[in-house]
Amino acid sequence: MPSATPHYDALSHRYTRIHRFNHLQQIAYWDLAANMPPKGHAARADALAEITGLLHQMRTDAALGEQLAAAAAEPLDALQAANLREIRRQWLTATALPQALVEQRSRVTSACEHAWRQQRPANDWAGFLPNLEAVLAVTRECAQRLSDATGLAPYDALMDQYEPGTTSAQVESVFTDLRTWLPGLIQRVADKQSREAVLSPHGPFPVAAQRALCERVMGLLGFDFDAGRLDVSAHPFSGGVPEDVRLTTRFREDDFLQSLMGTVHETGHGRYEQNLPRALLGQPVAEARSMAIHESQSLAFEMQLGGHAGFAALLSPLLVEAFGDQAAFMPGNLHRLLTRVKPGLIRVDADEVTYPAHVILRFDIERALIAGEAEAADIPALWDASMQELLGIDTRGNFTDGPMQDVHWPEGMFGYFPCYTLGAMYAAQWFAAMRRQLPELDARLMAGDLAPVFGWLKEQIWQQGSRWTTEELARRVSGEPLNPAHFRAHLEARYLG
Amino acid sequence: MPSATPHYDALSHRYTRIHRFNHLQQIAYWDLAANMPPKGHAARADALAEITGLLHQMRTDAALGEQLAAAAAEPLDALQAANLREIRRQWLTATALPQALVEQRSRVTSACEHAWRQQRPANDWAGFLPNLEAVLAVTRECAQRLSDATGLAPYDALMDQYEPGTTSAQVESVFTDLRTWLPGLIQRVADKQSREAVLSPHGPFPVAAQRALCERVMGLLGFDFDAGRLDVSAHPFSGGVPEDVRLTTRFREDDFLQSLMGTVHETGHGRYEQNLPRALLGQPVAEARSMAIHESQSLAFEMQLGGHAGFAALLSPLLVEAFGDQAAFMPGNLHRLLTRVKPGLIRVDADEVTYPAHVILRFDIERALIAGEAEAADIPALWDASMQELLGIDTRGNFTDGPMQDVHWPEGMFGYFPCYTLGAMYAAQWFAAMRRQLPELDARLMAGDLAPVFGWLKEQIWQQGSRWTTEELARRVSGEPLNPAHFRAHLEARYLG
Repeated sequence: MPSATPHYDALSHRYTRIHRFNHLQQIAYWDLAANMPPKGHAARADALAEITGLLHQMRTDAALGEQLAAAAAEPLDALQAANLREIRRQWLTATALPQALVEQRSRVTSACEHAWRQQRPANDWAGFLPNLEAVLAVTRECAQRLSDATGLAPYDALMDQYEPGTTSAQVESVFTDLRTWLPGLIQRVADKQSREAVLSPHGPFPVAAQRALCERVMGLLGFDFDAGRLDVSAHPFSGGVPEDVRLTTRFREDDFLQSLMGTVHETGHGRYEQNLPRALLGQPVAEARSMAIHESQSLAFEMQLGGHAGFAALLSPLLVEAFGDQAAFMPGNLHRLLTRVKPGLIRVDADEVTYPAHVILRFDIERALIAGEAEAADIPALWDASMQELLGIDTRGNFTDGPMQDVHWPEGMFGYFPCYTLGAMYAAQWFAAMRRQLPELDARLMAGDLAPVFGWLKEQIWQQGSRWTTEELARRVSGEPLNPAHFRAHLEARYLG
Repeated sequence: MPSATPHYDALSHRYTRIHRFNHLQQIAYWDLAANMPPKGHAARADALAEITGLLHQMRTDAALGEQLAAAAAEPLDALQAANLREIRRQWLTATALPQALVEQRSRVTSACEHAWRQQRPANDWAGFLPNLEAVLAVTRECAQRLSDATGLAPYDALMDQYEPGTTSAQVESVFTDLRTWLPGLIQRVADKQSREAVLSPHGPFPVAAQRALCERVMGLLGFDFDAGRLDVSAHPFSGGVPEDVRLTTRFREDDFLQSLMGTVHETGHGRYEQNLPRALLGQPVAEARSMAIHESQSLAFEMQLGGHAGFAALLSPLLVEAFGDQAAFMPGNLHRLLTRVKPGLIRVDADEVTYPAHVILRFDIERALIAGEAEAADIPALWDASMQELLGIDTRGNFTDGPMQDVHWPEGMFGYFPCYTLGAMYAAQWFAAMRRQLPELDARLMAGDLAPVFGWLKEQIWQQGSRWTTEELARRVSGEPLNPAHFRAHLEARYLG
């Protein structure tokens, strides 16, 4: 019997093939970051550019436009219709960028990221700048092309790749509100915490013990090691594919908390990927919803759970086991350490109260860069001015821990940063909904039982994939669209309560 | 100015793209063996099948036949002409196999290899058999298709993929000669060695120390760690790409020599790849000549160098450093250990005297399987009969160290095994030529100076890539085609001299 949905079937088959080629691209990318020796770089960059070009070709094939129109008239069920919506969205974005531009972007970002790995520790801004200029030039061209195709403003069109449906006007409105209360909150928390005694753990903390601890905590957090790994890279990330999730971290002998909490963050990403729906796996509808939703999972783990007193109680005996007994590892002290608020240079190490300041800074700079109101060479001055204003920190001459600290710009990921703070807000919104639905939640967490959180996230978020738009998803699981009030309430309750 | 060689240029461009996709395939394959968690298998098998299909499509495109004919009439230099010869050879082989068959082969071999990784340690022949039957069925079909296209007999057509130009009649003739003198030689060596005292090293040998030792020895052997790595896999192999060579080994705490000498073997492969010509890199003419020539490099390292008294003298202090002082690590005793002849179950652990017996066994079984004169279920009985006849060993019931010991059959690499013994013969021929050209060679090796060997191999073999056919290469560097007399002379001089 012939299929009643031949056009949909053809699209679906194409996306199954795309999923497989994407698998190779993801593993090759992870390998580049985690394993590749330095002389392998040029060949890897060429290989990644080649497959990026092939994937682009498959997503923009001339036949797709007609297939999409014809499939829309076929008798699709609700899941298939949602899949078609996602395929159309990807197609609109992909066709905006010509093949040569996509390949060029892959090449300049590979070159920039590769050189950055050496330049960052060397504080070599002068060496980094020409590579970043090349990345910025290609990113501006992509932004303009995406803008032409979508009707969004250029920066909004970049953001739309990561968080579809959210505009910079919305982000601006949320961030404007944040600016009104965040500095005051940071000050009040600092005052309150200045009266608390906190013991610092004393090292060194051997790397082997740190690695074993990280894997132990990932296990507690439900990570499936039969379907993923933890390795080391210069910039921690969550990579691989839903069937084989590759998390990375980095270790310092003098501090275990950074790598541990970084690992907890990536584990949130990893569990989302490992628990995406298996029905229609390989199709866009079975992929993670968006990057803000992804970050809402990593921050649900790192901040919502990691800053909970119940988590500190769970962690305490594991630290004693890993590093020996220290007064700093007592649950109460550990909880104070994990909720310590202190303005700092590094975004990924920031506490959840000062974190939004880092994102506001990058959002402001990126918009200026894409609008052509600033050039790459202007970044250090803009950076320093914002750090002074938002966090009272002098960053002059420190590029390593300043504008070179993140992999995002070397990789051309302009428009991504807002997702972190949107994610923090969604995470607070999810926990508020969880507490309404499960009034015993905090008691369960205090008893060391994290299962209710994982059960809720799995059912409400992970298993939904991209079935709903971000706004629909938020309404379904929490009864409302993004509401930043939950984030503020969370911070005030945790840090001033 | 338009190119004078537009058709050649188009072919060359296609092969540059093939080189890049092949890069991704090789890294994904290495990752599967070295890193991949078990639940990642199905997705990886699908992804590898997809890119295998794509590569097959690119090598068999309908436009290629005409381009090849037109390029042959273009004004090519000698290197380009050699490249065109190699492209035509690959095209003839590739077009023999339909796309669906190539993808099916990738799937059944992935499934068989994956299951074998658990089944081998469990001695689970019954579980392994149906997978192997599927591999054999698809291999027979490939052999028939290749035979139809090349005019070679089916098994010869399989061999031709690994060692072009060598027929099973030639191999049979060499092996028939071997059978006449090898058992007698093994007996005489055993008698001689039974009168020598050899001390065994006593373990355990911690894995971390073994790994450091292996890397140290790879460094002595000239491996470039900026362009490659050493990792662990169930079955050691040399993978990756010329620009980024991935070697693997496996460690046992009770024995360091297996993994060390396995690593020396793979390092020979690795140096060949790392030193292939960079001119025309990515083109077939810049690839390794053939698998027998590849094995001639690994065996030049493992056997010709590894069994030399100068190598034992170099190694001795490194062993003391790695594991502490033992009488067994004295140079003389170490040399006796490294040249110990003892019939055993495992091919990869065999000494160079008994090794050919393992290859003859597999050659006989493979030819019977491909000819349809035997089925997969018959292998254990055939195996045991041959092991009894050739090495006097009873293998009944031991599948782990019997027919399940190698990855070749799970991977469908029928026709490969003869390359090992051809390689051992070529390696002996190279060293005989080296000694004629460098009379001081052994004195230099005894003084711990391996550079003359590497210099000769680099210039004569590695840098030649596939510029010459195997026979032309042998004539150029040693003055004659394959001459097994050098192998016999080498064994008699080393073991009875």
